[in-house]
Amino acid sequence: MTGRMYEEIRQQPDVLAEILHEGWGSVHAAARNLRNRGFRFVMIAARGTSDNAALYAKYLFEIRLGVPTALASPSTFTLYGRTMDLENVLVIGISQSGESKDVLEVVRKARELGATTLSVTNEEASSLAQIANSHLWLRAGSERSVAATKTYTAELLTLYLLVAALGGAEQPEPVTARLPDQARQILEAGWEGVSRYRYAEYMTIVSRGYNLATAKEAALKLMETTYVVAEAFSAADLRHGPIAMIGRDFPVIAIASSGKAQPSMSSLVENLGDRGAELVVISDDSTMLDKASAKFAMPDSLPEELSPVLYAIPIQLLAENLARLKGLSPDAPRGLSKVTETW
Amino acid sequence: MTGRMYEEIRQQPDVLAEILHEGWGSVHAAARNLRNRGFRFVMIAARGTSDNAALYAKYLFEIRLGVPTALASPSTFTLYGRTMDLENVLVIGISQSGESKDVLEVVRKARELGATTLSVTNEEASSLAQIANSHLWLRAGSERSVAATKTYTAELLTLYLLVAALGGAEQPEPVTARLPDQARQILEAGWEGVSRYRYAEYMTIVSRGYNLATAKEAALKLMETTYVVAEAFSAADLRHGPIAMIGRDFPVIAIASSGKAQPSMSSLVENLGDRGAELVVISDDSTMLDKASAKFAMPDSLPEELSPVLYAIPIQLLAENLARLKGLSPDAPRGLSKVTETW
Repeated sequence: MTGRMYEEIRQQPDVLAEILHEGWGSVHAAARNLRNRGFRFVMIAARGTSDNAALYAKYLFEIRLGVPTALASPSTFTLYGRTMDLENVLVIGISQSGESKDVLEVVRKARELGATTLSVTNEEASSLAQIANSHLWLRAGSERSVAATKTYTAELLTLYLLVAALGGAEQPEPVTARLPDQARQILEAGWEGVSRYRYAEYMTIVSRGYNLATAKEAALKLMETTYVVAEAFSAADLRHGPIAMIGRDFPVIAIASSGKAQPSMSSLVENLGDRGAELVVISDDSTMLDKASAKFAMPDSLPEELSPVLYAIPIQLLAENLARLKGLSPDAPRGLSKVTETW
Repeated sequence: MTGRMYEEIRQQPDVLAEILHEGWGSVHAAARNLRNRGFRFVMIAARGTSDNAALYAKYLFEIRLGVPTALASPSTFTLYGRTMDLENVLVIGISQSGESKDVLEVVRKARELGATTLSVTNEEASSLAQIANSHLWLRAGSERSVAATKTYTAELLTLYLLVAALGGAEQPEPVTARLPDQARQILEAGWEGVSRYRYAEYMTIVSRGYNLATAKEAALKLMETTYVVAEAFSAADLRHGPIAMIGRDFPVIAIASSGKAQPSMSSLVENLGDRGAELVVISDDSTMLDKASAKFAMPDSLPEELSPVLYAIPIQLLAENLARLKGLSPDAPRGLSKVTETW
């Protein structure tokens, strides 16, 4: 049984290859354009899955370029009609359809207020593509499942390349060339032990640093497709209160790639184990994987800052898999449509 | 039966009065100092309850002052050791204890990187109070319950006054003078119908605009004290996916004050009713209250931008009440301590 979401998840190696081979030229040109205009601060407007890509971009802009970055509250522009001083601010709107009304409105107003604007869309002829100073096209092909998958990883890789180009790269870094093959390996590997969550009603997903975006995207995919009450936290935020709710058998998904966030995740996983939590682990660290009731072993040798592009895939597989176990169609969640109109 | 959390919730009218009468002078002086230094962007570092106050401050800075505002990712400074260009940036650290290690580290590094820094703490002699260029003392008195209540509303009012002073106010606006009495009325009123959630295992809390902070604080209080899996969304974000999980009998708390966000909340509540959700409403709007299975009627004539200070109180009462119904001690959630050490 294969649906649209299943098929679109499996198109990701080709989408990543397409972006690396065909997308670099326009990413590089957009970066040159943005550097010429100059900016000291970034503000990113997005909703849903694209907002998780925005969170990833916040870490990239701040850590790799040293530019303070805010996630926009669209209501500031749409409901409260605020005038802001946006000189030297780069405002980025991300929307797969390019028709998300509030994202459009943020970019339109931001341009009037003196910002340099960039849009990122999967639809080349969309409204958002046309109103920004620069545009990046995702090249992910038509996405028909309501739950976004390949457009999410396309957003991550495109934003990664953009930040690399803004940092002065003339070519995609060699490490990116391995992504399509690594994505293929991940798709062939698959999960161990997912069926035990057939009746789970809630889950917590935890990560830190770059992969906080992956945790948030995991929560969103699970809510949309399996109707599990899923909530994501950074390891630090979980310790500041919410950890109280986690007792024996509470399912917690830990997303832990090698890198600077790893020690914090490792200590949290130990702590959760002591509380009797049920651990699901996505990691390249065998010590952490050994503690899990369900697990997904990731390829190692992936730089932490690039890992979210591939760590997204097991969480998509998990959501799709669990939705089908529950007899739900992950392609058409109840009460959702592909373009959401909010204001 | 009264515990610490119960008592501290009831001290809030006096705390608000104290801030209005004794706090304005130092708020006004700090605002003058910050205006003299000048800033074009704001970045706020906080954890837990204080991070929800930071979200409220983001709306105030952006809507009332037109200054783009980011919530800091502390790991950018602590784990990734990033150097950022923070000239003309105001960096605010908020921590009740003033000893939150990662918030301290953000403020310390930000000052080295050229930022103007402000700290907000309830402990006058804390490390955070000492390292920033300016400091605001919350005057909430000693808080001994692990679940923060009066320090949260003290943070909200202090930040509200700061933004008013930055906007040029020479005195607290007359509307603020009514807050202590309105808080007293709210404490006398109490909830209708809370006992039906004795066995609820999860809840969603939804709001929009200024009161998104209230929704996030409600989720945090419920998780800490009742161990309910509670998740907050903006009305717009809920529609972008997570609403799929909300079916018949799913408990949703809607926080809807009069103002610009009200139409969006009203339409969402209607939509949730159609899905058969179980509605809990905190509002001054009788039409919305009439749709609820449990409700808390708020005083009207409260400006939307000030409403989070008072809308926080019913959510504290709800958490405290529900924790006691479940036989839990809201003063000492399992596995938590008053100062959380994260890095």
